[in-house]
Amino acid sequence: MLASRSPQRRAILEQLGVAFRAVAPGVEELSEGAPERLVLENARRKAEAVEGTRVLGVDTTVVLDGRSYGKPLDGGAAAQTLGALSGREHEVWSGIALRAGGEVAVRSARTLVRFRTLSTVEIEWYLATGEWRERAGGYAIQGRGAALVEAIEGDFWNVVGLPVAALVGLAPELVVAGGGSR
Amino acid sequence: MLASRSPQRRAILEQLGVAFRAVAPGVEELSEGAPERLVLENARRKAEAVEGTRVLGVDTTVVLDGRSYGKPLDGGAAAQTLGALSGREHEVWSGIALRAGGEVAVRSARTLVRFRTLSTVEIEWYLATGEWRERAGGYAIQGRGAALVEAIEGDFWNVVGLPVAALVGLAPELVVAGGGSR
Repeated sequence: MLASRSPQRRAILEQLGVAFRAVAPGVEELSEGAPERLVLENARRKAEAVEGTRVLGVDTTVVLDGRSYGKPLDGGAAAQTLGALSGREHEVWSGIALRAGGEVAVRSARTLVRFRTLSTVEIEWYLATGEWRERAGGYAIQGRGAALVEAIEGDFWNVVGLPVAALVGLAPELVVAGGGSR
Repeated sequence: MLASRSPQRRAILEQLGVAFRAVAPGVEELSEGAPERLVLENARRKAEAVEGTRVLGVDTTVVLDGRSYGKPLDGGAAAQTLGALSGREHEVWSGIALRAGGEVAVRSARTLVRFRTLSTVEIEWYLATGEWRERAGGYAIQGRGAALVEAIEGDFWNVVGLPVAALVGLAPELVVAGGGSR
């Protein structure tokens, strides 16, 4: 069971061939604090908020200069965020929590993302695509947002919304046949 | 015009919203030589082999210990390649060449990809997905192959088959409105 309403997370699990159902978790999320603690705690809350024998909770945040950028409230906020990310490197943190049989196992992942220097016209162009909506940091690296990014360092899927390498580390048997019995 | 028959390259241009037609180029490709020279020369040959007012040629290769790994001939070759990549970091090189008005402009991109240590059972599992076919290095990072990868450094799309950051650098007006007039 995936405790998330994110279409991106669903798409990644489908790409991996993981069978799952998805339910939106009704939790109060933390929005302040050290990024790693924040995403791990939010992931745990999500995993505990949904019923099921095996529940995966995931939380992702974009961090620049120690400040967390969540989903922009509106186009103006998205423009501000993209302007702040322009020409610089930021961090994307995800926490995943897998609850099974009363126990919760967690992992975190960090990816560095370097943005190109964006002109005002480019930011306006990107806002007009509408991709900024419902995305932490206001961009979708797997969409037109690919054109904003120069390079990354770490797990690409973490930036999309679900760190695949961390998931394979936490529960290889979910993803890879034989992955649990090396 | 895209001088390529790769479905991955088409998918990336579609994701970016670039309007194009695709034609398979009939060229003799180099398979030996320094990776950057190799992919640039092959990209140029492809761009010159197809008619059109603006033609994009792309070539990608996987390099480990100075050896280029192309598309595996069969499952046995794919298993050997995946075994060689297991637990190590390799390079993915792409060259892109854009021919317009008798001139050809080129760029190259390099991304580092670090594989997890894979068991024999995991390699067999991956072969059974069939994804190794028609892929340089025998894996698809945008498919189940995501589960083989620990981290990357550079442009993710280069590993899929078309370096987006290099394309934006070469021809911003193709991808980003206002990208050419900063």
